[in-house]
Amino acid sequence: MSRKKSPPTAGVILIGNELLSGQTQDRNLAYIGEQLQKQGILLQEARIIPDLLDVIVTTTRTFHQAYDLVFTTGGIGPTHDDITSEAMAQAFDRDLELNLEALQCFGPQDGDVIPEGHQRMSTLPKGVTLLKNSVSRAPGFKIENVFVLAGVPEIMRSMFDNLKDSLPQGQNILSKTVFINIREGLLAAPLAQIQGCFPELEIGSYPLWDQQEGGVNIVVKGYNPKAHQEAVEKIEKIEAKLKRIH
Amino acid sequence: MSRKKSPPTAGVILIGNELLSGQTQDRNLAYIGEQLQKQGILLQEARIIPDLLDVIVTTTRTFHQAYDLVFTTGGIGPTHDDITSEAMAQAFDRDLELNLEALQCFGPQDGDVIPEGHQRMSTLPKGVTLLKNSVSRAPGFKIENVFVLAGVPEIMRSMFDNLKDSLPQGQNILSKTVFINIREGLLAAPLAQIQGCFPELEIGSYPLWDQQEGGVNIVVKGYNPKAHQEAVEKIEKIEAKLKRIH
Repeated sequence: MSRKKSPPTAGVILIGNELLSGQTQDRNLAYIGEQLQKQGILLQEARIIPDLLDVIVTTTRTFHQAYDLVFTTGGIGPTHDDITSEAMAQAFDRDLELNLEALQCFGPQDGDVIPEGHQRMSTLPKGVTLLKNSVSRAPGFKIENVFVLAGVPEIMRSMFDNLKDSLPQGQNILSKTVFINIREGLLAAPLAQIQGCFPELEIGSYPLWDQQEGGVNIVVKGYNPKAHQEAVEKIEKIEAKLKRIH
Repeated sequence: MSRKKSPPTAGVILIGNELLSGQTQDRNLAYIGEQLQKQGILLQEARIIPDLLDVIVTTTRTFHQAYDLVFTTGGIGPTHDDITSEAMAQAFDRDLELNLEALQCFGPQDGDVIPEGHQRMSTLPKGVTLLKNSVSRAPGFKIENVFVLAGVPEIMRSMFDNLKDSLPQGQNILSKTVFINIREGLLAAPLAQIQGCFPELEIGSYPLWDQQEGGVNIVVKGYNPKAHQEAVEKIEKIEAKLKRIH
């Protein structure tokens, strides 16, 4: 899709063995993807990786270089398998420290003993910016261009909603979905022709397998309002045209 | 986790702009991950990438080298945005051809004219093995160590179920989930201690944020039945112990 200037780019790293074993169905990527699109930010790639320090470090460094913005989910809880903060410290060659501002998020500490869970969740790489949320007390954080978010979807969303205003705003992308109640195979030729006329648009075809009757959602995206409108109108006419032929 | 011999490894590539824009919630990874775990195959990584030829080619080559088995989903339908077959041909330096066996899957052709959709879905890299399914007529295919599957979950599952018997069988992994109705922060210390006693096991802690009462699922995985059993018993006793203290 041609655009006036390149949009900000993003990559997402979903961290957690439970996502790869099928034990947990990820619900974070779709949310982040939708929000980024609204913001005009181009999400170029997501990776789902296990709770292995080296893998998290390497993937973070790769994404840090490759994309303007990086979002990670998972691994910032209190238990031994939560190693994202340690991995971020290593990825950016920083020491870990007890972050007093993070510790305060857990409320006044009871006497001299800091609960191990609070201590662990407040032990962060030096020099990070906290990302607070209104669902749990434990904060995420931002380090360089990487936003380190929780894995629990309710907490992740609250963190994301709080940080959203700090993101760059890319050019608005126009997106329209046209439903056509015809087998996808019959749409191939007319759709390819329309895509050929409008190379600056992205036209996607998504069959609805769940519905008994079938049908296809055609999604038209682009930055040029005139081209977008014309392509949508042509696509809306396909159904009537094909029904005259068949 | 220590094991007698290294298990077969796998990587999954989910292809589709709609997964990155949040328009579609992926439901394929969790299914494949669960099936692979049952099979004793270690899923090491998944990537979600857009419908861009170069990206599909590069990612396929990387995974082909890195893992014993590779599974892709998406991009094998009839429309112009379905470019996975073309990408596979390029990734493995093979020509595309009209695969007559694939064409036959669509039933007897009506006269001399092959419908464009059937032709496109039957144009595959040379020398592939078809992966048929019982939900739609369009087949997936296997090329080298890469299983190229549909994106529609119902079709993907049918293809996967058909190919499952051809996969290598790794050592069976033991997995047990223990629910503990205590805040995760309080579990950090005893869980870390148990993990320390059983370095060969993988102990994961997953808070249930949805339930009003909270609580945590502890997942214990490993290959050694004795160690696994002992760790599970120790974890089952945490709740009673902590309730005596607090």
